Amino acid sequence: MEEIRVKTIVFGGDGFCGWPTALHLSARGHDIVIVDNLSRRAIDEELGAESLTPIRSIEERIAAWEEISGKRIDFARIDIAQDYEALLKLIGEYRPDSMVHFAEQRAAPYSMKSSAHKRYTVDNNTNATNNVLAAVVESGQDIHLVHLGTMGVYGYGTAGMKIPEGYLDVQVMASEDEQGNQVEPHPVEQQILYPTNPGSIYHMTKVLDQTLFAFYAKNDRLRITDLHQGIIWGTNTAETKLDERLVNRFDYDGDYGTVLNRFLMQAAVGYPLTVHGTGGQTRAFIHIQDMVRCVEIALQNPPQAGDRVKIFNQMTETHRVRDLAELICSITGARMELVPNPRQESPENDLHVTNDTFLDLGLQPTTLSEGLLLEVEETAKRYRDRADMSKIPARSLWNRTTHEGVPPSLVQTGGDQPAAATAG
Amino acid sequence: MEEIRVKTIVFGGDGFCGWPTALHLSARGHDIVIVDNLSRRAIDEELGAESLTPIRSIEERIAAWEEISGKRIDFARIDIAQDYEALLKLIGEYRPDSMVHFAEQRAAPYSMKSSAHKRYTVDNNTNATNNVLAAVVESGQDIHLVHLGTMGVYGYGTAGMKIPEGYLDVQVMASEDEQGNQVEPHPVEQQILYPTNPGSIYHMTKVLDQTLFAFYAKNDRLRITDLHQGIIWGTNTAETKLDERLVNRFDYDGDYGTVLNRFLMQAAVGYPLTVHGTGGQTRAFIHIQDMVRCVEIALQNPPQAGDRVKIFNQMTETHRVRDLAELICSITGARMELVPNPRQESPENDLHVTNDTFLDLGLQPTTLSEGLLLEVEETAKRYRDRADMSKIPARSLWNRTTHEGVPPSLVQTGGDQPAAATAG
Ligand SMILES: NC(=O)c1ccc[n+]([C@@H]2O[C@H](COP(=O)([O-])OP(=O)(O)OC[C@H]3O[C@@H](n4cnc5c(N)ncnc54)[C@H](O)[C@@H]3O)[C@@H](O)[C@H]2O)c1
Ligand SMILES: NC(=O)c1ccc[n+]([C@@H]2O[C@H](COP(=O)([O-])OP(=O)(O)OC[C@H]3O[C@@H](n4cnc5c(N)ncnc54)[C@H](O)[C@@H]3O)[C@@H](O)[C@H]2O)c1
Repeated sequence: MEEIRVKTIVFGGDGFCGWPTALHLSARGHDIVIVDNLSRRAIDEELGAESLTPIRSIEERIAAWEEISGKRIDFARIDIAQDYEALLKLIGEYRPDSMVHFAEQRAAPYSMKSSAHKRYTVDNNTNATNNVLAAVVESGQDIHLVHLGTMGVYGYGTAGMKIPEGYLDVQVMASEDEQGNQVEPHPVEQQILYPTNPGSIYHMTKVLDQTLFAFYAKNDRLRITDLHQGIIWGTNTAETKLDERLVNRFDYDGDYGTVLNRFLMQAAVGYPLTVHGTGGQTRAFIHIQDMVRCVEIALQNPPQAGDRVKIFNQMTETHRVRDLAELICSITGARMELVPNPRQESPENDLHVTNDTFLDLGLQPTTLSEGLLLEVEETAKRYRDRADMSKIPARSLWNRTTHEGVPPSLVQTGGDQPAAATAG
Repeated sequence: MEEIRVKTIVFGGDGFCGWPTALHLSARGHDIVIVDNLSRRAIDEELGAESLTPIRSIEERIAAWEEISGKRIDFARIDIAQDYEALLKLIGEYRPDSMVHFAEQRAAPYSMKSSAHKRYTVDNNTNATNNVLAAVVESGQDIHLVHLGTMGVYGYGTAGMKIPEGYLDVQVMASEDEQGNQVEPHPVEQQILYPTNPGSIYHMTKVLDQTLFAFYAKNDRLRITDLHQGIIWGTNTAETKLDERLVNRFDYDGDYGTVLNRFLMQAAVGYPLTVHGTGGQTRAFIHIQDMVRCVEIALQNPPQAGDRVKIFNQMTETHRVRDLAELICSITGARMELVPNPRQESPENDLHVTNDTFLDLGLQPTTLSEGLLLEVEETAKRYRDRADMSKIPARSLWNRTTHEGVPPSLVQTGGDQPAAATAG
């Protein structure tokens, strides 16, 4: 079976999600251009942190991929939030069929570190997304844009309903008829974007993105898919495992590391896993291999021009933080340490998510219970000598009222995670 | 009765709304600092357009005000979207009690002119608002922020309900109980931000603003009032009338001029008023004198720390475009010319708005039927020799599908107006 050659730009293709996506699509016959300004590597330097895995320079990665697969990936170093002209020129010359947009600052704690970090995150993420959209319009081309959003934009998931895939049917009470005459109040059905309640500046930028997408889809008939993703776990995919020079990033610091990655590192070096309060917060997860597959599926199922934005929930399972800790303890023999949560509010929260679209489209999820052992052996233990354990605690204060010190819930959540339930 | 001296910063205080607001508050005993980067004057040059009224430089305006009133207003030329450090320093040194934020690019047609204009509007407005919010947090001060939003963020007003003041009670169907167990679907009541459906990039930036406000009010307990304003009409207030050097701006060009101002100019120079289609679109209006009064009322009624954003609808009457044209014709003896609307969709739309808050707080509206004659005599006719009639038509194309030329509805709407019903 011959594969159709699709031209795809991967914005943020040097990052944790972007790099394995670029390789996965390249392996499946896409012609790939990676666009990245390497800001994530600069942030590693700013934070004095480093990927646990020894990631290579983008040039070395791409050269290794060509050596191994015989497939070429192009790279353009463009800051898409700042250099619109270069972005437009690339789109005009390359004429992509589709673009996958990962190029944003994606850590909630980082976005809350200081005023400068808040402003950088809003400025970078909003202008990156708006520039991509404006460039598609200006190019006059019909390009399918797939964006990575997060389920962290929502905060109403606890009212007893499942988080739907982007839209919500609501009933409002109308007291006028279509002609504007006063009538008895009567219920009217409407479908609206699911109301948001973001818990950090980072999550808020995803709400801003969502507003931009809805506008351009309506006004310019752009074809847009927004993937509301859970927390990625796992490090490598079939392609990044082919050679160590292709290895993917593994973040474990207090800003970018997810709760799972930080537990893994604590276990790998023989520290107890510190769970604050009851560890009762629920999070949605998806393995990195499933993530790249979902992006591929989304690319194969574009909306039509004139359609509203397609929104899919991209996650496969939900877990409470303490259950995750227990799972890792049972695999590694590590201990779990419950330390008291000084904050008043209940740290328990539920999360119920609809994810039918991807399952219907054939996704076969990797489960945490299957994949975790491999992750411990192949990543956490293998590279543990590279770890700097002093980087694990989160240091960002969410607001002025978290003056007691580090809000303990942050130490747990980190990375790309709904912070609504924990923010002060 | 001695008035309490309140320290207030007016961002965008050289603009159409900001200047009369600064004078009104100064007259009522506020200590005022105007912050403006004079970008609106630069846009006049870019467009080759000019205020019909001979507005003076900000320095001359302020000197004239001191001469006449004995009150001093300070001015700081700061681009609040770009120069955060200067903004923070000003807030730190001046220690305002409140701030009124008008400093945004506010014309829908201008925001749609080109990719560069779209990007400028998103970048300027989003960063201006986020910088102000981040600076309040960083300053550690408790400052009430009043922002000017627009009712143009809404697009659901035609479903038979009145546009409420910011929030909407909805019923959603829940199929799980609070513990996450599957139960019979049952209705759950929620209050959400009124769903938006902006019709231009400019209006969309006001949705972005709204998201920023909701976040900072929740996370940082900032006290914020967002005034969802209708189209301002009229030019001068009690204070700007005191001396010609204090005269306010009057825009009549296709980008910044409102439909009303453009009709007034057509009438003043003896042209027929061109109404496209049936002129059936309804718009909300408020006189500039009432606007400054509303801002004062909003400042006197701040939310408390921890409250959600206070949202008021700031308008006093609604009119269809053809009714406005008829009103002006009946006052001036001008003719009205209905020209066919080449677009398919029905250009009729209704608008029903709740504005109880300001009426309850004592606002006594100036009505169009009372004030319009004065506006014709004191502004349109008085300065008609300064008019450049070639500037009246709108030239912005909303999107690729409006290739027939200027979307006719735009010629009517212009300025700060809901474009939802007209955008292609
Ligand atoms: N990692 C997760 O668990 C997760 C979960 C949900 C959603 N997401 C979303 O997926 C996307 C990618 O996340 P990630 O984990 O790969 O993050 P990452 O930081 O590893 O990768 C982002 C990449 O984008 C680049 N970038 C940022 N701003 C740019 C700009 N202005 N111009 C060009 N390149 C720029 C960075 O240099 C980096 O290589 C993000 O939008 C994130 O919000 C991630
Ligand atoms: N005029 C209306 O009918 C109307 C209706 C609804 C809402 N509004 C809102 O009221 C506000 C003021 O509108 P206006 O009619 O006075 O507009 P305007 O353009 O006359 O005034 C805006 C002022 O802000 C300044 N400004 C813009 N960006 C700035 C920046 N980054 N830093 C510093 N100053 C900056 C401009 O120089 C200008 O003087 C806007 O936010 C607008 O959306 C106006």
